[in-house]
Amino acid sequence: MKLWDKGFSTDKKIDHFTVGNDRELDLYLAKYDVVASKAHAKMLGKIGLLNTTETEDLVSELDKIEDSIEKGEFTIEESFEDMHSKIEFILTEKLGDTGKKIHTARSRNDQVLVAMHLYLKDELKEIKNQTKSLFDLLLNLAEEHKSVLLPGYTHLQIAMPSSFGLWFSAYAESLIDDLYFIEAAHKVADQNPLGSAAGYGSSFPIDRNFTTKEMGFKTLKYNVVSAQMGRGKVEKATAFGMASIAATLSKMAMDICLYMSQNFNFVSFPDELTTGSSIMPHKKNPDVFELVRGKCNKLQSIPNQLTLVINNLPSGYHRDLQLVKEIIVPAIQDMKACLEILTFSLKEIRVNKNILEDEKYDYLYSVDTLNELVQNGMPFRDAYKKMGMEINEGSFVPKRDISHTHEGSLGNLCLEEIRAKMKKKG
Amino acid sequence: MKLWDKGFSTDKKIDHFTVGNDRELDLYLAKYDVVASKAHAKMLGKIGLLNTTETEDLVSELDKIEDSIEKGEFTIEESFEDMHSKIEFILTEKLGDTGKKIHTARSRNDQVLVAMHLYLKDELKEIKNQTKSLFDLLLNLAEEHKSVLLPGYTHLQIAMPSSFGLWFSAYAESLIDDLYFIEAAHKVADQNPLGSAAGYGSSFPIDRNFTTKEMGFKTLKYNVVSAQMGRGKVEKATAFGMASIAATLSKMAMDICLYMSQNFNFVSFPDELTTGSSIMPHKKNPDVFELVRGKCNKLQSIPNQLTLVINNLPSGYHRDLQLVKEIIVPAIQDMKACLEILTFSLKEIRVNKNILEDEKYDYLYSVDTLNELVQNGMPFRDAYKKMGMEINEGSFVPKRDISHTHEGSLGNLCLEEIRAKMKKKG
Amino acid sequence: MKLWDKGFSTDKKIDHFTVGNDRELDLYLAKYDVVASKAHAKMLGKIGLLNTTETEDLVSELDKIEDSIEKGEFTIEESFEDMHSKIEFILTEKLGDTGKKIHTARSRNDQVLVAMHLYLKDELKEIKNQTKSLFDLLLNLAEEHKSVLLPGYTHLQIAMPSSFGLWFSAYAESLIDDLYFIEAAHKVADQNPLGSAAGYGSSFPIDRNFTTKEMGFKTLKYNVVSAQMGRGKVEKATAFGMASIAATLSKMAMDICLYMSQNFNFVSFPDELTTGSSIMPHKKNPDVFELVRGKCNKLQSIPNQLTLVINNLPSGYHRDLQLVKEIIVPAIQDMKACLEILTFSLKEIRVNKNILEDEKYDYLYSVDTLNELVQNGMPFRDAYKKMGMEINEGSFVPKRDISHTHEGSLGNLCLEEIRAKMKKKG
Amino acid sequence: MKLWDKGFSTDKKIDHFTVGNDRELDLYLAKYDVVASKAHAKMLGKIGLLNTTETEDLVSELDKIEDSIEKGEFTIEESFEDMHSKIEFILTEKLGDTGKKIHTARSRNDQVLVAMHLYLKDELKEIKNQTKSLFDLLLNLAEEHKSVLLPGYTHLQIAMPSSFGLWFSAYAESLIDDLYFIEAAHKVADQNPLGSAAGYGSSFPIDRNFTTKEMGFKTLKYNVVSAQMGRGKVEKATAFGMASIAATLSKMAMDICLYMSQNFNFVSFPDELTTGSSIMPHKKNPDVFELVRGKCNKLQSIPNQLTLVINNLPSGYHRDLQLVKEIIVPAIQDMKACLEILTFSLKEIRVNKNILEDEKYDYLYSVDTLNELVQNGMPFRDAYKKMGMEINEGSFVPKRDISHTHEGSLGNLCLEEIRAKMKKKG
Repeated sequence: MKLWDKGFSTDKKIDHFTVGNDRELDLYLAKYDVVASKAHAKMLGKIGLLNTTETEDLVSELDKIEDSIEKGEFTIEESFEDMHSKIEFILTEKLGDTGKKIHTARSRNDQVLVAMHLYLKDELKEIKNQTKSLFDLLLNLAEEHKSVLLPGYTHLQIAMPSSFGLWFSAYAESLIDDLYFIEAAHKVADQNPLGSAAGYGSSFPIDRNFTTKEMGFKTLKYNVVSAQMGRGKVEKATAFGMASIAATLSKMAMDICLYMSQNFNFVSFPDELTTGSSIMPHKKNPDVFELVRGKCNKLQSIPNQLTLVINNLPSGYHRDLQLVKEIIVPAIQDMKACLEILTFSLKEIRVNKNILEDEKYDYLYSVDTLNELVQNGMPFRDAYKKMGMEINEGSFVPKRDISHTHEGSLGNLCLEEIRAKMKKKG
Repeated sequence: MKLWDKGFSTDKKIDHFTVGNDRELDLYLAKYDVVASKAHAKMLGKIGLLNTTETEDLVSELDKIEDSIEKGEFTIEESFEDMHSKIEFILTEKLGDTGKKIHTARSRNDQVLVAMHLYLKDELKEIKNQTKSLFDLLLNLAEEHKSVLLPGYTHLQIAMPSSFGLWFSAYAESLIDDLYFIEAAHKVADQNPLGSAAGYGSSFPIDRNFTTKEMGFKTLKYNVVSAQMGRGKVEKATAFGMASIAATLSKMAMDICLYMSQNFNFVSFPDELTTGSSIMPHKKNPDVFELVRGKCNKLQSIPNQLTLVINNLPSGYHRDLQLVKEIIVPAIQDMKACLEILTFSLKEIRVNKNILEDEKYDYLYSVDTLNELVQNGMPFRDAYKKMGMEINEGSFVPKRDISHTHEGSLGNLCLEEIRAKMKKKG
Repeated sequence: MKLWDKGFSTDKKIDHFTVGNDRELDLYLAKYDVVASKAHAKMLGKIGLLNTTETEDLVSELDKIEDSIEKGEFTIEESFEDMHSKIEFILTEKLGDTGKKIHTARSRNDQVLVAMHLYLKDELKEIKNQTKSLFDLLLNLAEEHKSVLLPGYTHLQIAMPSSFGLWFSAYAESLIDDLYFIEAAHKVADQNPLGSAAGYGSSFPIDRNFTTKEMGFKTLKYNVVSAQMGRGKVEKATAFGMASIAATLSKMAMDICLYMSQNFNFVSFPDELTTGSSIMPHKKNPDVFELVRGKCNKLQSIPNQLTLVINNLPSGYHRDLQLVKEIIVPAIQDMKACLEILTFSLKEIRVNKNILEDEKYDYLYSVDTLNELVQNGMPFRDAYKKMGMEINEGSFVPKRDISHTHEGSLGNLCLEEIRAKMKKKG
Repeated sequence: MKLWDKGFSTDKKIDHFTVGNDRELDLYLAKYDVVASKAHAKMLGKIGLLNTTETEDLVSELDKIEDSIEKGEFTIEESFEDMHSKIEFILTEKLGDTGKKIHTARSRNDQVLVAMHLYLKDELKEIKNQTKSLFDLLLNLAEEHKSVLLPGYTHLQIAMPSSFGLWFSAYAESLIDDLYFIEAAHKVADQNPLGSAAGYGSSFPIDRNFTTKEMGFKTLKYNVVSAQMGRGKVEKATAFGMASIAATLSKMAMDICLYMSQNFNFVSFPDELTTGSSIMPHKKNPDVFELVRGKCNKLQSIPNQLTLVINNLPSGYHRDLQLVKEIIVPAIQDMKACLEILTFSLKEIRVNKNILEDEKYDYLYSVDTLNELVQNGMPFRDAYKKMGMEINEGSFVPKRDISHTHEGSLGNLCLEEIRAKMKKKG
């Protein structure tokens, strides 16, 4: 059964092409369609388009559907185009004409939009929470390993002393920036689009302020054309936020893969977190981190993918917009999986404590040695030339006592200030 | 003269390849290098690495350089690698050893980072202001033309009545969403990275809180590794924000190009804002809006371009990061030019007042006619079938009196609520 | 069972994260793993690493597996990591130690690579064939409707006369260009990578020329490191080819959606190929063409998505490369579905024959009128000024007899030459 | 002076916005506009639209302009919109009415298209030649260093023995694949679009076969609408080809940056090819290779950038297409610079000969040791378990004599076969 069935027999081929995998994706969204339908039914009752019994019957049946969804018992059979037609079918089957009335003063486009906004709000909140857990873990690891030194590289050349304290908390502080974009996306999602109908509003005297409060939105997307233009845009906003986090996670995964290589040997993980090779028995491969990197790099392609699908379309709904669902929903699942597995795995990280004892890292200390000359009065450029000569001649003796004291340096990680910065975001 | 000259004669070829168009781009950034240098000099004075005379001499010379930049007299000759070496050359030429001391406790990487943060803060503020001007104009146009009707399309098929009031203010309200991303980018930029040196901090007892206040940053990017990882990331944050605005502008430009076509004929512009054809004397082409669309579509590619350049690089500086400057600076200029020209041009838009009189738009009223049946008690699905039959039989008579009253609809644009939503953002 | 099982109990979480949807995707590839395994077994026999009985037993069991795959009876249960382990499991279950020997002198990486090359060769051939069918249809439609005129637009402004003959065959000729890229991708795929093992070859005296011929590859990817680097690259090559076709299809779909709008009304389709609206009974929406456009725009994002996943990885295998399979396989299915549905639907296109009778199209003839002046001796620039004046004054009288005779013009479509150009590609 | 000047005073602002940096870019293209103009003039002579004197005068003046371009004396002043108006201005100044006649039967769109095709043909040929030079160098380096061993990595874990012979020639063989795409792009460019006029052909009896031969195109882009649709598409084809090469170069640059790190120390370069640090005197940074990597990664973003600009535009010219010039021309210059500098620099590469003596590389030999067990009759899976145990117990003794003999392996690089594969491409 299709909502717009006019009696024509629509060709099967077309049907298959147009429906795609909507039914599978709708299992993620069905709960939110029900939530919005309840708010819509109550509003129709409030403005007198449904009587009290009708409203109560609809809400009661919708409660049952919500319950079946939460129990994992809700299904969308092949005979239904999507969740919307399945839910309306159940209501009509149970309530007859009353069931049909739920569609008064709304359109399917409306339903998809509002369900997506509600869905994204929940997922963005979850992503934010996961990110904060990872942030907390990274700060704890930074505290725990703050005195373990690590070579700092520039151009992949050995440069200056760094530490695991710096390294862990660098990624923590970076995640704060990423959350600004998750929050921006949340603000975009936290606006009620219900009532835009097909994108131009309705002649029914609906009460959009009522549904806004009922569903817990912070505000309305007032203009109905603007609400409709949100289709694709709210998903892209979410994708920007996820791409930000993904970039940070991918970079950390790249570091870990490098640091697990025998050529660095800075960190290791227990066997349960590495995988073997089908022909090399000695291998302990960082598959988990490679897949975090790969999945996060794929996540960074989502904004562009969404842009290509929705770009240069004139205003008003186009069926192309249906495709954004199959892009954003799996991407969100990937994002959450990456955050979860990275937090799960990093708890087990083992840090090599004596890295800098290898003499190839001696040059790490050249800058501090040079700075000492400067502090003793030699102009910087002259000190630089003197040091260069010593290094070339092999007469350079590193000054191994590191004393970095300024804010955010090796000896002064400012972990509490970073924690406070995160907290201030609320 | 290069900062890192060790006496080797570097091959010209390499020199040309590595310097690129840095000198040209640095003219946009030079002012900010001077601002940061003054803060750095004062800080060096505060912690005793410079004496009072040295500090005053440096600040005074830097003031002169800033002055020359503002007058457009500052140049970076081919003999200099970039603005940093030119500015240091001037200081050394004027002040001798004192000039050399400005580089104490900082690195060129440091300088590039802090200048970019300061530059982006200014540009993001300007973009926000331009966006607000466009927003105000759009709301004014919505108010002015609120009663002029327009066909609303779905699937590019004639669907329901819309209005210029709805159309103009839809783009206004969309811009609010875009500004959430500009603001997120501003938060990322509004953190002081100075003091990260080569990315691992310094053994000098520098005072980063001092420079933070001196330059007007809201907070520090504490962790020095995180500060360094901001290179590329702060530009990408800016690009996300611009891509959001660009998508809105591009869509509006697409609408305008369509609406100027003789097949729609909804809007027109004075001759000064259209261009002609070299072989078709009757043409009045919407080149300005096509270029806004094209440039804004190009702007939407910038986040991906930056991602490709910086992705999968391990932590620590890499020379690849130099390339982000040549991507972001021209993109910002394009963004501002598009905002400016669109605001400039839209002021002159002429709206066709009698569009809906053409009978091909009669079907626009079918939904409202249908809703009336429903309001009079017929179940929605039955009313839908009845209407469909009338349309097929040619017996459909449109109900032309539109009465949309709910929030954000044709008859209730909520312009003040939209204005308030923008204001709340501060 | 995993190939690299070393006795550790690997955490379920990790297992789920790393295996992903490989089993599902492998159903597309399993046939090719069997084909390659047979070639490998025969080669091992040839070089004496298997005796005749072992070889025959393996080939015979592999034939049975291939048979079960073709009948749709082959499954990969959750207890298997992928098709490779399932197939090896069957062989070992049936043949004991002989089954285990199939893995001699190859690695799983090897198997994935060669199966992908074989799979892509087949799919690229199928895509080429489908493209040629669409090409043939477009030329037939061009021939059939060659005398039906259409407005030609520049800047979406009415410009010069065009025709359905020109319009259909324009897309046909464009597809030839796209096939150059499909052919380039085919050349990349048509090289045997088997024998690269883990990416560095093998100490067994394998005969790669033998397997090359056995599997029908045109040549070897000789260098084993290069063969391994093909992972991700051969998929990207395929994606470039598909993106080319997709751009052409997307553009044609955009035209169709526009031309089906009531504001153009150039073409229509039977009801079975359009869809309705849940609240607007008069709508006949071009969903099929919108989804072709949307899916083809999504297809154009695939090269970038692959690039992001594989970019900046040093040489040698990384687990990230596993992800390319889940990107390319569904994309190929989408490409084929779009080609199929577009060909299926275009057969039913209905062309409006009297479009140019509407007087708004009169200006289409201005250029030809102008050219006549020039042919009668007036310099072009002067003729242009004269015509412009007439149009402004309203005294312009169009010259409606069109006589375009040059190659590729309205009156001389060169369909045979275009057909010949396609044929020359072989 | 603008070609389409109708007497209106166009606002300066608009002018600046629409012209952009066309004048600067046109210096790359001016030569090709002249070549096409000569062919066009001769054709007009042939079909009698110009008399012999007019034709000769035009060709002679165009020769002079071509000469001035080659001498670098040609300029496009601010008073001209682009090269086309400047060239026509010169012709009219010198030849009066005859000069004006050059624009008979063509449009500016036509001129841009044909100049771009000619330009791209030349640049693609140059890129192909540069790629072949790099290919030859890589094969020579492979031959020179074929016996120097290198660790082969998978998952960045030490895996199996590789060699500089394998490493250099792997990149060489990969370049062959890339050239398939350069050749596909060349085929797209090698079609004459001249005669499409504004995209719908001309009523003049022009001879497109004549101009095709005159300009040395292999064939015509017959259909005039298709020819016009080539705008943007031929540039994207070129971008696909360049992106292929760029991916290979970027990967090689990534390897080099890694291999120059003190943690690998596999290769080095003379001081002239490395750069220093402003605060670390011991650094020898691989800036050249980092910039090759970065620029090549940026090049990989060009196809997507072009796609975003041209996508979802209906058929027919749009001003957006002007922007592709400012994307493709600098990208081509970057591509050539990267090929040139990489070839220039790789000639100086110094290879460390004793890498594998470090005991951390002992495990490289585990596979070959394992294979020997298998060759002596032990089933693969059992041999794998035995080896694993020895490695865990520390009793593993590597078998250091490597004997890889199959095609494309360490001991049998097949350089001649690879060379022959390149040659076969013609």
